[in-house]
Amino acid sequence: MDNLFVGTLIESDLTRLIQKLNPNKIAILTDENTYEHCLSLLMNSVAGLESAEILQVEAGESSKDLEIVAHLYGALTEYGFGRYDLLINLGGGVITDLGGFLGSTYKRGIQFINVPTSLLGMVDAAIGGKNGVNLGVYKNQVGTINFPVQTFIDPAFLQTLPETERLSGYAEAIKHGIIHGRSLFEKIIKSDPSQIDATLLEAVCSVKADIVKADTFEKGDRKLLNFGHTFGHALEGVMMEGKGITHGYAIAIGMLVESRISLDRGLLNNEDWELIKQNLIFKYPIPHLSEQEMDRLLDLLQNDKKNHSGTIRTCLIEGIGRCIIDQEVSGEEFRNAFNSITNDL
Amino acid sequence: MDNLFVGTLIESDLTRLIQKLNPNKIAILTDENTYEHCLSLLMNSVAGLESAEILQVEAGESSKDLEIVAHLYGALTEYGFGRYDLLINLGGGVITDLGGFLGSTYKRGIQFINVPTSLLGMVDAAIGGKNGVNLGVYKNQVGTINFPVQTFIDPAFLQTLPETERLSGYAEAIKHGIIHGRSLFEKIIKSDPSQIDATLLEAVCSVKADIVKADTFEKGDRKLLNFGHTFGHALEGVMMEGKGITHGYAIAIGMLVESRISLDRGLLNNEDWELIKQNLIFKYPIPHLSEQEMDRLLDLLQNDKKNHSGTIRTCLIEGIGRCIIDQEVSGEEFRNAFNSITNDL
Repeated sequence: MDNLFVGTLIESDLTRLIQKLNPNKIAILTDENTYEHCLSLLMNSVAGLESAEILQVEAGESSKDLEIVAHLYGALTEYGFGRYDLLINLGGGVITDLGGFLGSTYKRGIQFINVPTSLLGMVDAAIGGKNGVNLGVYKNQVGTINFPVQTFIDPAFLQTLPETERLSGYAEAIKHGIIHGRSLFEKIIKSDPSQIDATLLEAVCSVKADIVKADTFEKGDRKLLNFGHTFGHALEGVMMEGKGITHGYAIAIGMLVESRISLDRGLLNNEDWELIKQNLIFKYPIPHLSEQEMDRLLDLLQNDKKNHSGTIRTCLIEGIGRCIIDQEVSGEEFRNAFNSITNDL
Repeated sequence: MDNLFVGTLIESDLTRLIQKLNPNKIAILTDENTYEHCLSLLMNSVAGLESAEILQVEAGESSKDLEIVAHLYGALTEYGFGRYDLLINLGGGVITDLGGFLGSTYKRGIQFINVPTSLLGMVDAAIGGKNGVNLGVYKNQVGTINFPVQTFIDPAFLQTLPETERLSGYAEAIKHGIIHGRSLFEKIIKSDPSQIDATLLEAVCSVKADIVKADTFEKGDRKLLNFGHTFGHALEGVMMEGKGITHGYAIAIGMLVESRISLDRGLLNNEDWELIKQNLIFKYPIPHLSEQEMDRLLDLLQNDKKNHSGTIRTCLIEGIGRCIIDQEVSGEEFRNAFNSITNDL
């Protein structure tokens, strides 16, 4: 279960939690960015970390890799890290995914704490217990579902982010708003991604935490969190072969496409469609896809790991705050929706 | 939670379970021994396995390795194995440990079934949810605690085992008897390891399953299962550098040593000590250890992963059926107990 604290680290219970857990050793997992820009805030806000071992991996998705995990198992072993010691994952989604898997499998699971430093990490990756690494092009092919002792979300870290990273996380925040309801959605779209206050951040994070609490193993309503992700993941896959796209950007386009399918099916009214479109399309302009790229994207849609027996299943929406899961949609509907949005521009 | 069936596979619900789980694909993990000696019994007893993919690794501890796991992730991916597909682990402790870890981490966990084929697997390794692989010399350094859908224990597989393997598992059965109580202990020591019937086997398996059910994450009573394992694991470590020793043999010697410490401390009476000694010492003769080997063994005892802050903690016994956990014992007591047993011979 998620146990979230949202606020400044210095006012948090992290120091007391560490005293209570009473580890012999502490390791902090960072990448070169969080080592440079985030570690001092953590160290200055929390007592008891002076002699922590700092583990550092390269920033970026390529660190979500089995060889990196094997290297980290070795580092912890060499450091004499025991079953009752403490791992702190300080970073964005790559670090909490990687460190969560490390902490869930080293000595069959040790105590770990997540300190997400990116907006995407705060509102999405560090919540919900999913961790893992990639297997070549297969994203999160290896992992577990297992929760940290606690997740500490300090909005101060948002200042350390480049604009593209903030926008990436902002897309997931908007998604939580669309899933949850109009009031939260409107607060999010009126907020500035670099200045999200703790109260709003907590409301956004709670959307995911509450859904996961009710359905940790994704038998039902956890699938709501996949809104925008069916098309979004496939788009990420296609773009990966070219110049790439951030996760949030791809999910924003995915939400546009899945909302447009909902409009085309008569599920979504025009007013809500326009509201969603206007708030996504200027921040996340539609990328151009060649015919070959679109064909490849449809192939990837057919192979999405959420499918059962060959049909594409996705979330659609009947309005803001009214997302529905397990809807069968054809590849042609996805193609038509994408083309409609492009033609409307 | 463990869900055990003990009896013949053909009379089991495995066929119906597979129909209920309704996987698109099934993979069966084997090693070259279980492929040769056990697969046909499984295939002939259970319907629905005709088109299963057979995965095969080398027999032996060396297959409990991260590179092998990575290879198996790749094989399942290539085979198009999905989140709702089914893995069957057919083998001894190596296969259920390896396959359990594979099934617990591939796509963040798929459904898997254990079919243990060795006595050690049946009464110990395939029960309790612990899985994992080794990291060089560090045994089970990587793994999870996660349960199969069900574990099917068919005594017919015992016929396929060499005598040394049967004796290895028999030691864990005796341990379950010592932990549980006199009546079960006496039934076990009167039984023939190659002819254990389903009723007795079920009683032995239930000792572990019940303890694990009450304390899955080893906060307390699950440690009872470690009786014999403090000294036993260290002995395995020392012997690994030489000609090796089976796990059960090492644990049998460990039980002798930990019982002898219990006698020396006045916890165990002479009658129970003699009963335990007579039933272990002829089946599992005490190996000779040089002074250097004994020093190395004491080093390993100090580094046991069950220790807290430098003191050696182990199980002792106050009688058959009266095992106690978390007892602090010095390295010298272990050395003296081992020497006393050797000198008594």
